[in-house]
Amino acid sequence: MKLGMIGLGKMGFNLVLNLLDHQHEVVAYDVIPEPAQKLAQQGAIPADSIEDLVNKLPAPRVVWMMVPAGEIVDQVLEQLIPHLREGDIVIDGGNSNYKDTLARAAKLEAKGLYFMDVGTSGGISGARHGGCFMIGGNPEAFQIIEPVFKDISVENGYLYAGEVGSGHFLKMVHNGIEYGMMQAIGEGFEVLEKSPFNFNYEEVARVWANGSVIRGWLMDLTQNAFSKDPKLEGIAGVMHASGEGQWTVETALELKACAPVIAMSLFMRYRSLEEDTFHGKVVAALRNEFGGHAVVKK
Amino acid sequence: MKLGMIGLGKMGFNLVLNLLDHQHEVVAYDVIPEPAQKLAQQGAIPADSIEDLVNKLPAPRVVWMMVPAGEIVDQVLEQLIPHLREGDIVIDGGNSNYKDTLARAAKLEAKGLYFMDVGTSGGISGARHGGCFMIGGNPEAFQIIEPVFKDISVENGYLYAGEVGSGHFLKMVHNGIEYGMMQAIGEGFEVLEKSPFNFNYEEVARVWANGSVIRGWLMDLTQNAFSKDPKLEGIAGVMHASGEGQWTVETALELKACAPVIAMSLFMRYRSLEEDTFHGKVVAALRNEFGGHAVVKK
Amino acid sequence: MKLGMIGLGKMGFNLVLNLLDHQHEVVAYDVIPEPAQKLAQQGAIPADSIEDLVNKLPAPRVVWMMVPAGEIVDQVLEQLIPHLREGDIVIDGGNSNYKDTLARAAKLEAKGLYFMDVGTSGGISGARHGGCFMIGGNPEAFQIIEPVFKDISVENGYLYAGEVGSGHFLKMVHNGIEYGMMQAIGEGFEVLEKSPFNFNYEEVARVWANGSVIRGWLMDLTQNAFSKDPKLEGIAGVMHASGEGQWTVETALELKACAPVIAMSLFMRYRSLEEDTFHGKVVAALRNEFGGHAVVKK
Amino acid sequence: MKLGMIGLGKMGFNLVLNLLDHQHEVVAYDVIPEPAQKLAQQGAIPADSIEDLVNKLPAPRVVWMMVPAGEIVDQVLEQLIPHLREGDIVIDGGNSNYKDTLARAAKLEAKGLYFMDVGTSGGISGARHGGCFMIGGNPEAFQIIEPVFKDISVENGYLYAGEVGSGHFLKMVHNGIEYGMMQAIGEGFEVLEKSPFNFNYEEVARVWANGSVIRGWLMDLTQNAFSKDPKLEGIAGVMHASGEGQWTVETALELKACAPVIAMSLFMRYRSLEEDTFHGKVVAALRNEFGGHAVVKK
Repeated sequence: MKLGMIGLGKMGFNLVLNLLDHQHEVVAYDVIPEPAQKLAQQGAIPADSIEDLVNKLPAPRVVWMMVPAGEIVDQVLEQLIPHLREGDIVIDGGNSNYKDTLARAAKLEAKGLYFMDVGTSGGISGARHGGCFMIGGNPEAFQIIEPVFKDISVENGYLYAGEVGSGHFLKMVHNGIEYGMMQAIGEGFEVLEKSPFNFNYEEVARVWANGSVIRGWLMDLTQNAFSKDPKLEGIAGVMHASGEGQWTVETALELKACAPVIAMSLFMRYRSLEEDTFHGKVVAALRNEFGGHAVVKK
Repeated sequence: MKLGMIGLGKMGFNLVLNLLDHQHEVVAYDVIPEPAQKLAQQGAIPADSIEDLVNKLPAPRVVWMMVPAGEIVDQVLEQLIPHLREGDIVIDGGNSNYKDTLARAAKLEAKGLYFMDVGTSGGISGARHGGCFMIGGNPEAFQIIEPVFKDISVENGYLYAGEVGSGHFLKMVHNGIEYGMMQAIGEGFEVLEKSPFNFNYEEVARVWANGSVIRGWLMDLTQNAFSKDPKLEGIAGVMHASGEGQWTVETALELKACAPVIAMSLFMRYRSLEEDTFHGKVVAALRNEFGGHAVVKK
Repeated sequence: MKLGMIGLGKMGFNLVLNLLDHQHEVVAYDVIPEPAQKLAQQGAIPADSIEDLVNKLPAPRVVWMMVPAGEIVDQVLEQLIPHLREGDIVIDGGNSNYKDTLARAAKLEAKGLYFMDVGTSGGISGARHGGCFMIGGNPEAFQIIEPVFKDISVENGYLYAGEVGSGHFLKMVHNGIEYGMMQAIGEGFEVLEKSPFNFNYEEVARVWANGSVIRGWLMDLTQNAFSKDPKLEGIAGVMHASGEGQWTVETALELKACAPVIAMSLFMRYRSLEEDTFHGKVVAALRNEFGGHAVVKK
Repeated sequence: MKLGMIGLGKMGFNLVLNLLDHQHEVVAYDVIPEPAQKLAQQGAIPADSIEDLVNKLPAPRVVWMMVPAGEIVDQVLEQLIPHLREGDIVIDGGNSNYKDTLARAAKLEAKGLYFMDVGTSGGISGARHGGCFMIGGNPEAFQIIEPVFKDISVENGYLYAGEVGSGHFLKMVHNGIEYGMMQAIGEGFEVLEKSPFNFNYEEVARVWANGSVIRGWLMDLTQNAFSKDPKLEGIAGVMHASGEGQWTVETALELKACAPVIAMSLFMRYRSLEEDTFHGKVVAALRNEFGGHAVVKK
């Protein structure tokens, strides 16, 4: 299939390589020209602009956006839509909020365009060598693009999840689970680290990654991380969050679903962004007020 | 009543003053002599030693220990018991673990002594001017000491809770609730502090302390704290814990009681004791491994 | 002052009585006529309609809405605004989301009207005999209505919190704290209930309500509740939530404030609404899958 | 190697089969005779008693206990120790608390016996076809038994973790992480279940099990579970716990490690064991007291 890729960052770049590996023709565009030029050396067709990209595609056009979630998606769509015609298919493969996806799909559908939301998992290596894709949108449009996903995913690694929005919804929840799993792993190693035993964390991660109940890719990656820095002395425990965990908790609140573990994972990330907390000051001040307990002065 | 007080720290010292206010005779002892000397000027009878304290009391002797929880209680009991006779009453007014209390009571009962466990709340000001006392132990021994508690508590501020251990158990749970309440207040002010509004925290605490659903002594104290330091800039949010919160959570675990709020209050205290966390390092390393997300280097 | 009250439910009705006690003239309206008729017997001026209510007030009109949060506020405003003139003051005393308040205030301000947001705490008894009011909005408009709040609040029980929205924001956070405090109290009693001791819960609440660190109105109410039903056998542990706790958590998420205790309080409420959970089924199924642990069949 | 296995339940039985597959000679014993008889048909040597089992082993004897944690371990040791001689090796492959392990090891070491603690993971299928083993104890004794673990584990699936106790400590923490991961997965599916979309849970688990960040054995098992019962309608969400999660949280408390996710996973299990809660009754009663909110009568 011949398709366009807009956005050639870590994920988009590797997806293009993956697509080229499977004999797809890819017209590639990014606001900065270097990645498209690099990809051209691997067989991609570089485009100078979104218009140029569209012009280089046969009808119905299949255009995959792999850009940061939020306003940038809307900006790209604004530039893209005028060049598209009825029946064309736009894929949003980024981490968009599913509510934004619903709104965007309504706009595109009004113009006779298909909007497919694709949650992409598996990290950079998955994008490059076989990822996991959760796909929502029109079922007929899905049939057109399905061969692409069959090629670039691992075996059993793509799912047509249902109506538009369901792909990004699934990815959101996937990330919520991921937050919980990562925090659980982190807490486990923290207990080891504070224990009276003298564990070799890389070895522990290795044995847990092989044959245990908690084996999986995250444990493989834990082993990798400890293999590079046995006690993680070189990095700080600052846990940034890119939005999907927060959306999962917000969605749980809306749905009145009980999601304490995912919520706590997120709160511990927020906590890690601060050196000190105002709630801590209040509690410390109260202990001083009623019990005369010493406070740490600043 | 004439009774002895062992331990003249912030709490014991003020309890003696409170007892003297109500015409009780108090023989006062501490390992350092100054507090007993000061109290002598207020009418207390200073003792040089635990033996001296016991000798200055009429039978049945009533001896109140107000010493830090843990081994010191056992050390004091070891010195005290040889001087006591059947029918004497020992009060542990400190924050002892109720399981320790059960073990100590068994020892004393074997010698014909009464061991009364008294959970004391109300802070330093309560000790001085009227506190809250949760009392466990032999009901007949309680009748002997009840007049004392009637005098030194606020109205309705003492309770015979039942068999030995029940007083310290109640105090433990009281502190667990206290942890939860304090953390809730702290979190509320943290949300205010991060909000786009420009609240005067002292004024907020004042209005919440008057007529609201969340009014109470902790909110009064919150107002006091902000009146001294409007944004608590002078203190760090380091929240120490003295044991009772942890015992409450441990007890909840043993009893299979669901106590998420008390547990989270405690964990946030532990978190506040650390500048960085090992679980945070693990999570940050994992994000880097799968997504290439930047870590904060140290 | 002469002012109008729209909405004569549990809160509005009692606020009118409170206002009448302090020699304010109140024009009272509700969609059902009975409450206004009853209040007329106490000296209020009943109105047949919102238009009638407005017509019975002198300029600048002060109209207090005490209606359920959400769409009803907008419906009342839609009926009310056409009858108002520049300089009139509308008070929203309900539990509105502060973001809705900001949007409504913008609309009213565009018409030269003042919109004051008032968070009301203290429950029904507070509405009747002296409550707690957190007030946001134009400072000059506040000066006009301040005498009313001085009269109907307890001493120090009202606060001009700042610009519009700040009153409802404070009330939202107040309720978040309230959720945390209530859950902490509930957990404490659950630990007592599962303990080997045989506590009298009313007595426990009484002693904690007098002189302890955790004394306050919620503990007074706990005592009341146990005095009516010593083991709460007559009621189910179903904890409904009316929105403000959820908004507090959502706001904490937006502000990246760490609020685990308020969040857990809310999640336990959601959990209590369900007899069984899907997350529980998944975990039970997994335990069966890997360990052959028996599941409870349905 | 020729070794003895005491305890032929789900785990022990399958471990014997696994050992036999790898040409080890196994003397097998259980309090009920049937499993040993069945294993005899597969080549194991059945024993009538613990004494008989010991007598059938060459020196130094290697005896693996695979019995339920707790008192039974002590009972077996009591029967076993008199028959052992200096240099013999006892393996506890069950889920014993590491503190019990330390106490038992001290007893055995005093008699010149080696006590090896082995945390076993991988479930029943792992026991049968290749599991994960975390091994603590004397390093020289480990060298004697290492070939056994090499054979019965998956590749890289055993670890000599260090001094005695470290194996069971690791297994405890492993299970704590497992609790957190399982709860995270459960919460994710609960959000899906309450969502407006109509997901096929088996398909979702399948796609997440292939190529995603959260892939791993637990997700494979989730897929299995949904393949048998697409909405888990046949089972209740009752989540039993066998102790290791609780020990992990208790250990975290002792070490002042912040482990909110593991703790919340455990509390949700406790919550699931109850139809109604006392904390819920208290909160519901309080809402009724201050706000007149209706309670659910029983």
